[in-house]
Amino acid sequence: MTDASGEVLPNTEVVVAQLDHAFGFGNIGFDFLGLANGEPDEIGTESLATLYADVFNTATLPFYWGRFEPTRGAPDTARLQQAARWFRDRGVKLKGHPLVWHTVQPDWLLGLPVDEVERLQRERIRRDVADFEGLVDTWDAINEAVIMPVFENGDNGITPLARARGRIPMIRLAFEEARAVNPRATLLLNDFDLSSAFECLIEGVLESGVEIDALGLQTHMHQGYWGEDAMLGMVDRFARYGLPLHLTESSLVSGDLMPADIVDLNDYRVSEWPSTPEGEARQADDLERHYRSLMAHPSVEAVTYWGITDAGAWLGAPIGLVRADGTPKPSYDALRGLVKGEWWLAPTTVLSDARGRVSVEGFAGEYQLGTSARFAASEQSTRFTLSPEDRHTRVTLPSIT
Amino acid sequence: MTDASGEVLPNTEVVVAQLDHAFGFGNIGFDFLGLANGEPDEIGTESLATLYADVFNTATLPFYWGRFEPTRGAPDTARLQQAARWFRDRGVKLKGHPLVWHTVQPDWLLGLPVDEVERLQRERIRRDVADFEGLVDTWDAINEAVIMPVFENGDNGITPLARARGRIPMIRLAFEEARAVNPRATLLLNDFDLSSAFECLIEGVLESGVEIDALGLQTHMHQGYWGEDAMLGMVDRFARYGLPLHLTESSLVSGDLMPADIVDLNDYRVSEWPSTPEGEARQADDLERHYRSLMAHPSVEAVTYWGITDAGAWLGAPIGLVRADGTPKPSYDALRGLVKGEWWLAPTTVLSDARGRVSVEGFAGEYQLGTSARFAASEQSTRFTLSPEDRHTRVTLPSIT
Repeated sequence: MTDASGEVLPNTEVVVAQLDHAFGFGNIGFDFLGLANGEPDEIGTESLATLYADVFNTATLPFYWGRFEPTRGAPDTARLQQAARWFRDRGVKLKGHPLVWHTVQPDWLLGLPVDEVERLQRERIRRDVADFEGLVDTWDAINEAVIMPVFENGDNGITPLARARGRIPMIRLAFEEARAVNPRATLLLNDFDLSSAFECLIEGVLESGVEIDALGLQTHMHQGYWGEDAMLGMVDRFARYGLPLHLTESSLVSGDLMPADIVDLNDYRVSEWPSTPEGEARQADDLERHYRSLMAHPSVEAVTYWGITDAGAWLGAPIGLVRADGTPKPSYDALRGLVKGEWWLAPTTVLSDARGRVSVEGFAGEYQLGTSARFAASEQSTRFTLSPEDRHTRVTLPSIT
Repeated sequence: MTDASGEVLPNTEVVVAQLDHAFGFGNIGFDFLGLANGEPDEIGTESLATLYADVFNTATLPFYWGRFEPTRGAPDTARLQQAARWFRDRGVKLKGHPLVWHTVQPDWLLGLPVDEVERLQRERIRRDVADFEGLVDTWDAINEAVIMPVFENGDNGITPLARARGRIPMIRLAFEEARAVNPRATLLLNDFDLSSAFECLIEGVLESGVEIDALGLQTHMHQGYWGEDAMLGMVDRFARYGLPLHLTESSLVSGDLMPADIVDLNDYRVSEWPSTPEGEARQADDLERHYRSLMAHPSVEAVTYWGITDAGAWLGAPIGLVRADGTPKPSYDALRGLVKGEWWLAPTTVLSDARGRVSVEGFAGEYQLGTSARFAASEQSTRFTLSPEDRHTRVTLPSIT
């Protein structure tokens, strides 16, 4: 530490505190589009938003083409941009999901020739990635490409295109178009199929020279937590490719588990799926094990949980960390205890040595440092970044003003 | 038709007869290595060989590295060459299985560095493909690449190599080495995994420029015939790549079916698995449906059945077309009835027209034509080939001596 004139500051008491994690603690931001846009919304309330932003530093925004642009030429751009700004103002980064998928597609693609569908798909990618550059710089470039050409998904414009072109050309299309308009974007290849099929696809994609920034691994666990061994075994299979891994869609229920014989989770329909005290205890325990194991894996850079509240949750399942009545479940407290407790460097007073050095240890992320007296006025403190490679190494600060 | 001097032969009676099918009716030739080499053999008898060669025109020979070369530097080349010649002399073409696989590997690969294993694997391919050129010109270049890097298969030299290199480099290795020494060989990418995983792998292989001659699709059906719809649905998924398809390993039991919950067929062990009258009737019916549906598919060029006799059959299952006592099952008669009956042009007398033309209709294959009087002396007759594109077209013969 030096002062503004470059003099070292020996034997000086300073306070170091963490501002953010480098690790992505994500969740879906779907519930806050209304609130962010000043629309009446019973689910996305201010109090839910406060709970959200206290734990999660990344929000996944919905860009399902069929909902984003139900009428051709009238995309929901302004509303999503406002939501993105609203999150950003709360310290939450954004991710877009997805640019290419075969589900929730616009009806106006139906019946068009595949060449026309390809042209429109490419234009949609360029338009939306450009419109959100600087707000949304991380994208699921393509979702579920493994089944894309063969899944019986009802009429939609994309399945025939994928069947005609093949998986790798579809992936190349998504990455090339997104990269062309936002070269610094983080682009993911995201899938729920974590079998050898996805490995084979990845190997083909890498052989064919498509530049992937991260692999997205869905882990919906409505049928029960897989356990650390199975989860890390899976993660290790995909870590072999040397790419960062994002667990893009994790969910754990706080009620009865879905029967194990259901193959497509969408096929399971129940009239009521309540959150129970036993289920909530199990969910909290499973969630903590899930995050602890993944946080310790060197390839995993983000975990996105798929739901903040049970209200309106996917499949009606009690996968939220907050009950439908707005009260946090034990799982919420457990995750907050890790993200803002055990893994968080709360403001810590340290004394510099004779050469003006202080030593801190913390998880990769953003930090600030200031003299004790000035610390509260954070705009006067110095920020620094601890990157993953810096773990357990000292950071020397150039100056304190 | 003309005579030796070039004169047309109008109003002349000739006999046309089929000699062979272009379609590959294959079976394993494993049981005849002893007989072909003059060794005492209780299973591979002359009478079994006669039944075999009356239906099957292609034999798959075993080149499992661990059995072919159990002692390093002492491959079983001469014995396999003799078996290949023995089959060839009976009008049966040969196929080699497999050049690269992770099962039945030599112990002397264990503990060697992967670079050394790769060098030895490459040398083994070049050596064996060269040693058998002209005798064995069709090879399963690589077997079961989908699971190759990840299957828990006990200690073997190939799994670590596949894990280190990846699937597509392993496939490239196999095809490049085999192609280098036998450019006219038919090289197959063969797998039992017929899910999207194999599709993804194929798409990656094609993107990366490896030249595949045919796709090998295993269809062991110890758990019951899949039915025409499921089988052709699967075939259509792989026909999309425009490559010839070989159903390389088909089997149907003539006894109790293996329970449906067995995932790896090798896990099912029973002390006795008898062939039953009911099972034999079902097997014959299933077999006929299987062959009829595949013969009618334009992409399918070969079906290899995986066993001629129940004696010593894989898994002890009654998958043979001949009982352990050497008598043919109904399935044998059913298949022979197609291959040498319904789908076969028996010697047929036809009369040429005023311009010396005769018209025949038959399945793609080899045919001979001679004047009635000389027909029995087949060396004096004219041979011609009907290729698949020639179906239902007339073949004009240049001359009859």
